[in-house]
Amino acid sequence: MELHEALYTTRAMRRVTNEKIPMATQGRILDAAIRAPSGGNAQGWRFLLVDDVDTIAALGPLYRDAMDQLWSTVYKPRIDQAAAAPEAADSRQFEKVRKSAQWLADNFETVPLYLFAFSAFDPSGSSIYPAVWSAMLAARAEGIGTCLTAVLSFFHLDEVLELLGVPKDAGWVCSACVSFGYPTGRWGVAPRRPVQEVTYRNRWGESSGLTVDDALWPPR
Amino acid sequence: MELHEALYTTRAMRRVTNEKIPMATQGRILDAAIRAPSGGNAQGWRFLLVDDVDTIAALGPLYRDAMDQLWSTVYKPRIDQAAAAPEAADSRQFEKVRKSAQWLADNFETVPLYLFAFSAFDPSGSSIYPAVWSAMLAARAEGIGTCLTAVLSFFHLDEVLELLGVPKDAGWVCSACVSFGYPTGRWGVAPRRPVQEVTYRNRWGESSGLTVDDALWPPR
Repeated sequence: MELHEALYTTRAMRRVTNEKIPMATQGRILDAAIRAPSGGNAQGWRFLLVDDVDTIAALGPLYRDAMDQLWSTVYKPRIDQAAAAPEAADSRQFEKVRKSAQWLADNFETVPLYLFAFSAFDPSGSSIYPAVWSAMLAARAEGIGTCLTAVLSFFHLDEVLELLGVPKDAGWVCSACVSFGYPTGRWGVAPRRPVQEVTYRNRWGESSGLTVDDALWPPR
Repeated sequence: MELHEALYTTRAMRRVTNEKIPMATQGRILDAAIRAPSGGNAQGWRFLLVDDVDTIAALGPLYRDAMDQLWSTVYKPRIDQAAAAPEAADSRQFEKVRKSAQWLADNFETVPLYLFAFSAFDPSGSSIYPAVWSAMLAARAEGIGTCLTAVLSFFHLDEVLELLGVPKDAGWVCSACVSFGYPTGRWGVAPRRPVQEVTYRNRWGESSGLTVDDALWPPR
């Protein structure tokens, strides 16, 4: 797969079938992930693949409750805002994301594979998320949809770490939980605020001189 | 460029020429970056491109001093370890990284372009580093070398934010400084600890069942 197709179409793809992911495919995804850079090339990471039905069944209720808590705290203002103006473009987009996120919560146990990523001594996350994103891009090239969720780092973290047997006080931080599966929907380019609205040059607030009106992929 | 070539060969490439990077190329890199996912698709990011000679000249001494402080604090034990066993494979690898990092400090002013990435409300970094890594991968496809450095977030941060005009108390966190330039060296696959040493399955410490002896790219 061409790099740009992967960069442009690896959007959060939560709705997947329960079809298992072959071991050789998992090996290719992980080998691509570990090529990512890390500070001082320290590779202070561990990847924990979870495909055991009982383990996933134990995680499911924790994940659902974590999502419930997220909706009623962090995302409460956005939900209220969307409810107040349901026809606004922002509201529709948010509701779409919310429904998709809730699908994963409701169907947590049907997803065939999860990848938990752990990092050591990486307060910023700059040494773990490139590897995680590489795994998601490599999965895209295999026709596998992924979604990065941090919600289990906010709620029920201790129970999750206990369940997965993560050693305590060894300095490992759970940085991500990524779902993997063959998608039921279609790949596409997600809508984004354009470059000119989020990019400055030399000083905060000054025009970058760049204007990109439409996504540059697929090539026209 | 094929996705896997980018994932496997986008290693830290600090030694670059002073050749300017065309605006159209910068636009393609930024447009690829903003396609990355962010939590709730919030896109809480700003990208600040720095190519002004005076601004870079003001940043240079701060960066050099930050690196000096990093060597004498965080990396002191590793430097001592490498000095004690200079022939060990680990030591050689570390010294290689250290020399390359010092090159960037010594030649900060010759690099034609820096990208500062800022994030809002993203304590884990999971909503900014995918975009930053996408920018680095997209640069790779343009033949441009990059290196992500967080050192200015550890030392001299206030002076850097002042210099770049970043508003105070607006919640923006400086997540990364990435150097961009046409490399003087060659692209290649960086050495990494193999998948089987850093990947578990279902429970911490249990074999993942995956064995990848050599990097899977280039295909054999």
